[in-house]
Amino acid sequence: MSRLFLRTLREDPADAEFRNHKLLVRAGYIRRVAPGGFAWLPLGLRVKAKIETVVREEMDAAGAQEVHFPALLSAEPYKTTGRYADYGDDIFTLEDRKGVEYVLAPTHEEAFALLVKDLYSSYKDLPLSIYQIQEKFRDETRPRAGLMRGREFTMKDAYSFDIDDEGLDASYDLQRAAYERVFRRLGLEYAIVSAHAGAMGGSRSEEFLHPTPIGDDTFVRSSGGYAANVEAFRTLPPAPREIAGLPAATVFDSPDTPTIATLVALLNDRHPRGDGREWTAADTLKNVVLALTHTNGERELVVVGIPGDRDADLKRAEAAFFPAAVEAATEADFAAHPVLVKGYIGPWSAAGPVLGGSSTSGIRFLVDPRVVEGTEWVTGANEPERHVLSLVAGRDFENDGVAEVAEVRAGDPAPDGSGPIELARGTELGHVFALGRKYADALGLQVLDRNGKLVTVTMGSYGIGISRVMALLAEANSDDKGLAWPRSVAPFDALIVAAGKDEALFEAAERIGRELEQRGADVLVDDRRISPGVKFKDAELIGVPTVVVVGRGLTDGVVEVWDRAADTRSEVALVSVVDRVAALLEG
Amino acid sequence: MSRLFLRTLREDPADAEFRNHKLLVRAGYIRRVAPGGFAWLPLGLRVKAKIETVVREEMDAAGAQEVHFPALLSAEPYKTTGRYADYGDDIFTLEDRKGVEYVLAPTHEEAFALLVKDLYSSYKDLPLSIYQIQEKFRDETRPRAGLMRGREFTMKDAYSFDIDDEGLDASYDLQRAAYERVFRRLGLEYAIVSAHAGAMGGSRSEEFLHPTPIGDDTFVRSSGGYAANVEAFRTLPPAPREIAGLPAATVFDSPDTPTIATLVALLNDRHPRGDGREWTAADTLKNVVLALTHTNGERELVVVGIPGDRDADLKRAEAAFFPAAVEAATEADFAAHPVLVKGYIGPWSAAGPVLGGSSTSGIRFLVDPRVVEGTEWVTGANEPERHVLSLVAGRDFENDGVAEVAEVRAGDPAPDGSGPIELARGTELGHVFALGRKYADALGLQVLDRNGKLVTVTMGSYGIGISRVMALLAEANSDDKGLAWPRSVAPFDALIVAAGKDEALFEAAERIGRELEQRGADVLVDDRRISPGVKFKDAELIGVPTVVVVGRGLTDGVVEVWDRAADTRSEVALVSVVDRVAALLEG
Repeated sequence: MSRLFLRTLREDPADAEFRNHKLLVRAGYIRRVAPGGFAWLPLGLRVKAKIETVVREEMDAAGAQEVHFPALLSAEPYKTTGRYADYGDDIFTLEDRKGVEYVLAPTHEEAFALLVKDLYSSYKDLPLSIYQIQEKFRDETRPRAGLMRGREFTMKDAYSFDIDDEGLDASYDLQRAAYERVFRRLGLEYAIVSAHAGAMGGSRSEEFLHPTPIGDDTFVRSSGGYAANVEAFRTLPPAPREIAGLPAATVFDSPDTPTIATLVALLNDRHPRGDGREWTAADTLKNVVLALTHTNGERELVVVGIPGDRDADLKRAEAAFFPAAVEAATEADFAAHPVLVKGYIGPWSAAGPVLGGSSTSGIRFLVDPRVVEGTEWVTGANEPERHVLSLVAGRDFENDGVAEVAEVRAGDPAPDGSGPIELARGTELGHVFALGRKYADALGLQVLDRNGKLVTVTMGSYGIGISRVMALLAEANSDDKGLAWPRSVAPFDALIVAAGKDEALFEAAERIGRELEQRGADVLVDDRRISPGVKFKDAELIGVPTVVVVGRGLTDGVVEVWDRAADTRSEVALVSVVDRVAALLEG
Repeated sequence: MSRLFLRTLREDPADAEFRNHKLLVRAGYIRRVAPGGFAWLPLGLRVKAKIETVVREEMDAAGAQEVHFPALLSAEPYKTTGRYADYGDDIFTLEDRKGVEYVLAPTHEEAFALLVKDLYSSYKDLPLSIYQIQEKFRDETRPRAGLMRGREFTMKDAYSFDIDDEGLDASYDLQRAAYERVFRRLGLEYAIVSAHAGAMGGSRSEEFLHPTPIGDDTFVRSSGGYAANVEAFRTLPPAPREIAGLPAATVFDSPDTPTIATLVALLNDRHPRGDGREWTAADTLKNVVLALTHTNGERELVVVGIPGDRDADLKRAEAAFFPAAVEAATEADFAAHPVLVKGYIGPWSAAGPVLGGSSTSGIRFLVDPRVVEGTEWVTGANEPERHVLSLVAGRDFENDGVAEVAEVRAGDPAPDGSGPIELARGTELGHVFALGRKYADALGLQVLDRNGKLVTVTMGSYGIGISRVMALLAEANSDDKGLAWPRSVAPFDALIVAAGKDEALFEAAERIGRELEQRGADVLVDDRRISPGVKFKDAELIGVPTVVVVGRGLTDGVVEVWDRAADTRSEVALVSVVDRVAALLEG
C-alpha cells in the first residue's frame, strides 16, 4: 500500500451527488479527468476487471463468442438504419482529414450486422451470438452522476443472428438467462421489466432494472411478480357493459368550470347522481390534444380521451405514438383547428360527431383502455360553456383506437392479474432486445435458407453497462464510512494492516500477506508508516471485505480479523489466522 | 470449430500488401470494418490477449501499476503543451454538443501528468510508474498496412514520474529492461536504436525496432553493436588538421559546371592534384540552402556545408533543426537573398565572408561534422562561374555550428568506434522516452521536495504497439501456406482434426480435446463435417502450433501429431497422444 497509486480523500468531491460517486472518488477507485470521463485507478480497475470476468464467463457459457470492434466507425451505416438522425446530438460525430464522417459508436448493431453479412451466407452458419466488452461514447448533456452516466463508459454488447423467429426467441432467452446469472453472481438485486423498444426497434424488449432510490427510471411492479417500466405498462381494461337502458346523453350549461375539479363541484351541486354517491373526477372524460410530428416531418393533431382523474404522461404518449415525436398542442394548433372548442372539447356535439375517423374534422380520436363500450362519461359538448352527461362509449361516440397516454398510479391492477402495482425507482443494468429484421433489412443482411432461398436474418441486441453495474454495486454495498465490497468483485480479498510502529508488526503483516497469497488470495498489505487511526479510516473507506489487524496483541500471539461489511471483529491466534482467512475466502 | 465465428478465405484481400495482413484476414483473425479499423474476431482477440498478458506481467514485474484513461479528452491540455499544433491533422478532433473541443488521444502524457498533479504533492509519493493498455487513435493518411498502421490500434503506454534525473534514469532503465523481457518472451527479434525525440521532446530516447524487410523505418547498425535510427545517427568527426603550410585559397573559372560531377571533371582536367590521386566529389563542399519555419511562424534561410559526395537527407535535417519545419529553399527565397549566387554559393568570396554570423548577410552557415578545422575544400566562390580551391575550414571560413544534414551511408563508421555501419529496414515495436520536464513544466506538475521546496517532476513515456507487435509476430511466424504461431501467443495450444467421415473419428477427437483441456491446454477441435483436405488447408492457414490428426490410423490405435512450424509429422499411439502433446506444451 505504500507503493500503491492511491490517494484517499476525507472530503466529498464537489460535483458528486450520489454516495457511490463520492466514495469511489474518495477511496481512490476512479478520478474525473474529463466531463463524464473517469480515469480508472488501480483499485477501480481491479473491481471492473472482476465484473468483466463474471460477465465474460456467463456470455461464454451461453455460447456467445467474444470479438472486439473499433469505436470509431463510418457514419454511413448509422444513416442507413436511421439511428444517426434518431440519436442526433446524443452521439459524438467527427470527420477525418478527408472530410469523411465518423461516429464514436454508442452501440454496434450496424457494425455487427455488416460483419456477419461480410463473412456469413448460409443458414448453416446460424445461430450466432457474438459480443464485446468495450468503451462506448455518448454525448450526455449533464454527465454528473459519476459512473452511472458517463460520456465514455464500459459496456458489454452482444448481438444474436438467427434464421427465424423461433431461433431469435431461443437466443434471446439464452442471453436473458445469462443476465440473471450475472446479476445473481454479483449479488445485485434486479427486476426484469417489460420495456418499450424505442429507437432500437424490435418486437420484444426487457430491461434489467436495479431497484434503488437513486434510480432515474420509474417502474411498476406487483407483489405477484409483474414488472414493467412505466412506458411499457399496459392498463387492465374493465369488461364492456350493457348499453341498453342507459340514460340518453344530456347537454347542460357549465359556466366557470375551467378545471375538472370545478366541473365536478358543479355536477354535485346542480346534477347530483341518483345512486347515492357523489360525482368524482373519474366520471369525467378529459380530452387531451396532442401534436404528433411524424418521421416524415408531417404534423398531426390527435385527441386522446382519458379518465379525468388522471394526467397525461408525455413519456407514455411518446411510447404510444413512437416513432412520432409528441408534444402538447400549441395555441397555433388550436387556431388552425377551430372545430376544437378549447375547455369544452368532446367527441360528440349536439350537431353530430366532432372527432374520429367518421367525423367531418377527421381528427383522430383515441381513448384510454378504460373507455370500453358501455362506459358513461361527463365530457365537453364541444360548444362554449356546455358539457354533456351520460355520453356512452360505443353508443354516442366511436374511437380510432386505444392509446396508453394516462399516467400510471400505485394501486392500478397489473395486467396479468397479479394484483395492484406499486411504483418504484430503479436504474437500468442491462437491456435485452429482440430486434427482429429492422437492421438486417436496412443493411441487406440475408443468408440462404434450407431451400436455397435468400432470407433476411433476425437479430437480437443485449447490453450490460459494466461501469454502471460497478456504481450500483458500490451504492448497495457501502455505508457512511465507506465501501464494503462483496467478495465476488472486491479489489483484494484481504487487507492486512500493520497497526503500530514496531518493526515486528510490519514483518508479521508481510508474512501473513505472503502466506495468504500462496493460498491464492489477492492481498493488500498496509505497510505505510502512518498512524493506525488513519489506516483504519482508509480500511473502512476502501472496503476490502476482510481486514486483518496486526497490532498490540501480536506480543500475545493474537491478531484481529475484521469483517468490514458486518463490522464485526474477532481475535484470532496468529498461528491460525491464515487458515481462518483462507476459509472465509472459500466461503 | 463448427461453432467458432470463423470464415477462412482462399483469396488474399485486395487491399493487403504484406503477408501478415493477408494471412490474418484470410485465417479469420481480423476483418477490416473501417478505414484503418479492424474487428478482432475470436482467434485474433485470443492472440492479442496473450500478447497483452505478457506485456502486463512484465509491466507489473517492473513495478508499474495499471490504470485506464478515457480516450476522449479535452483538447485544452494538448494545446497547453503544444502537441495539438504539432500533431495537426494526424489526430482526430471533435466538439461536443456545447462546442467544447476534444481529442481522441494519440498518447496520454498530458492526462497522466494532470492526474498525478491532481493526486500527488510530495517527493514521498515518487517514484511512480503507471500504465494502461488502451485503444489509441491517429488519423493516418493512408491506413493500408493492416495492423501495422491503423487509425485505431491497441497500445501499452506507461509514464514514469520522478523527483530528479537519477530517478528518471532508473525508471527509464526499468522500462527498457522490461521491454527486452517482453520481446524475448514473444520471440520477436529487436534492435534498440538511439532515436531522435521529435515531437515528444526530452533528453534520451530509444526505439525498439524489429528488423524486417517490410519495415517503414531505416536504421543503421554496426557489427560491434551500435544501432540508431537514421535521424539520430551521429557522424564520427575526423581529427582536426594542422592549418599551417596549407596552400592559399585560389579562385578559378568554372564555366558549365552545373553539377558536382562536371565540377570534378573540370578540376581533374584543368587543376590536377599534385599528390597523384584524382579529385573526387568528396573534395568539394556542397552548400545546401534550407528554409526553416520556426514555431513562431518566422521563416529563416540557413546554409549547410556538406561533403559534395553526399546528398542532403531532409528527415535528418528536420531532426537537426527540430522543432522548426524544414524545406529546400524556393526561388522566392533566393530572390529575397541576392547575396546567394545560385550554383556558386560558398561561405567565402574574394570580397570577404559571405555567410555566417560575422558576415554582412547574417545568413547562418552550419557545417557537416566532417568539416573540421584544417580540412581543405573546393567550393563556390560566390560569384558567377567561379569556384575556389584550397578553402580551409578555420582559416578561410567559420561556421555557426554543426548540423547533421548529410545522408548516412553503409560503410560510414559508427560513432562509438564499433566499426562500419550497415543500413537495415525495421518497424518500431516500442519507444522509450526520457521526457524530462517539458510536460510537467507546461502543466505545472510540481511536488514538495525533502526541503519543502516546490520542484518540477521529471517524466518518462514508454509505448508498445500491441496490435503492431501482433502483425510482426504473424509476419515472422508464417509461410506461404499460412500462420505458424509461437506457443507463447498461439490462439490455441492444439488443434484436433477429425479427418474422415466415421463417427468414431469425431468421438476420438472430442475425447482427446477434453483430456488435453483437463491438462490445462486451450484446445480447438475441428468437428466440421467437411473434407479432410479443407481441414488440413485451414490448419495450415490458422497456424495452431500442434495439430493432432485423427484419421484412418485410428482403427490401428494411431494418430498423427503434426508440428505446424517445422512441418514435421509423427505417428503416435492413441493411448499416449495426450501425454505427448501435453509434454510439447510444457516445452
